[in-house]
Amino acid sequence: MSEVIPARFLELFQKKSFGHLATLLPNGTPQTSPVWVDFDDTYVLVNSARGRLKDKNMRQRPQVALSIQDPDDPYRYLEVRGRVVEITEQGAEEHIDRLAKRYLGLDRYPYRQPGEVRVIYKIKPERTSTQGS
Amino acid sequence: MSEVIPARFLELFQKKSFGHLATLLPNGTPQTSPVWVDFDDTYVLVNSARGRLKDKNMRQRPQVALSIQDPDDPYRYLEVRGRVVEITEQGAEEHIDRLAKRYLGLDRYPYRQPGEVRVIYKIKPERTSTQGS
Repeated sequence: MSEVIPARFLELFQKKSFGHLATLLPNGTPQTSPVWVDFDDTYVLVNSARGRLKDKNMRQRPQVALSIQDPDDPYRYLEVRGRVVEITEQGAEEHIDRLAKRYLGLDRYPYRQPGEVRVIYKIKPERTSTQGS
Repeated sequence: MSEVIPARFLELFQKKSFGHLATLLPNGTPQTSPVWVDFDDTYVLVNSARGRLKDKNMRQRPQVALSIQDPDDPYRYLEVRGRVVEITEQGAEEHIDRLAKRYLGLDRYPYRQPGEVRVIYKIKPERTSTQGS
């Protein structure tokens, strides 16, 4: 296992690839959900909203894991274990719009809720592994 | 949230739906990987092999979580949190062949390794939630 995401798997962050994000509940048990995923050349980025379960979990317990399948081949995937090293609202609105462009083909994220505050979570990969070529 | 998987989502266990299984490492941090998933009307079933990371994790720390996307609509998914209540090798070879039929269209699971011992993990759902209709 490596800290580094193999270069040939970085294209997953250009496609409509879903990550399944595991976070830890207050009692230490896991919780998972599908998320859009991004990569800024250092961190895996996830975008959620203030007050959600995964938001609360990541603020209190930064250790997370993600598995990301290639939408063109489910037997090709990337696993990342890491730590949320930064949580920011700065740029999070623009970021979710960029993700909406990639995943939905829309210029603007269409599912905003009244009062929702978008948040970016920056995950530093600590262990990565891959399946498939 | 409910202990019960809504009936309309049970069809996910008839399709080529992947579950992303989160287990807990010895230090309490999460690990995830895509798995084939099955349901026996009571438990969610996962099939792995003796000695693998997820096998060791589930034997020691039975709390797991799964998110299962509809292969026909990634915005429709089922989340399950639960506990591994039984681990058995009985029927596990036949079970992986049945899964190979469903997922790969093959009568026999083609990826057996020398000496591999297949194992079924029975997960009792404790909390379930869904997205999509």
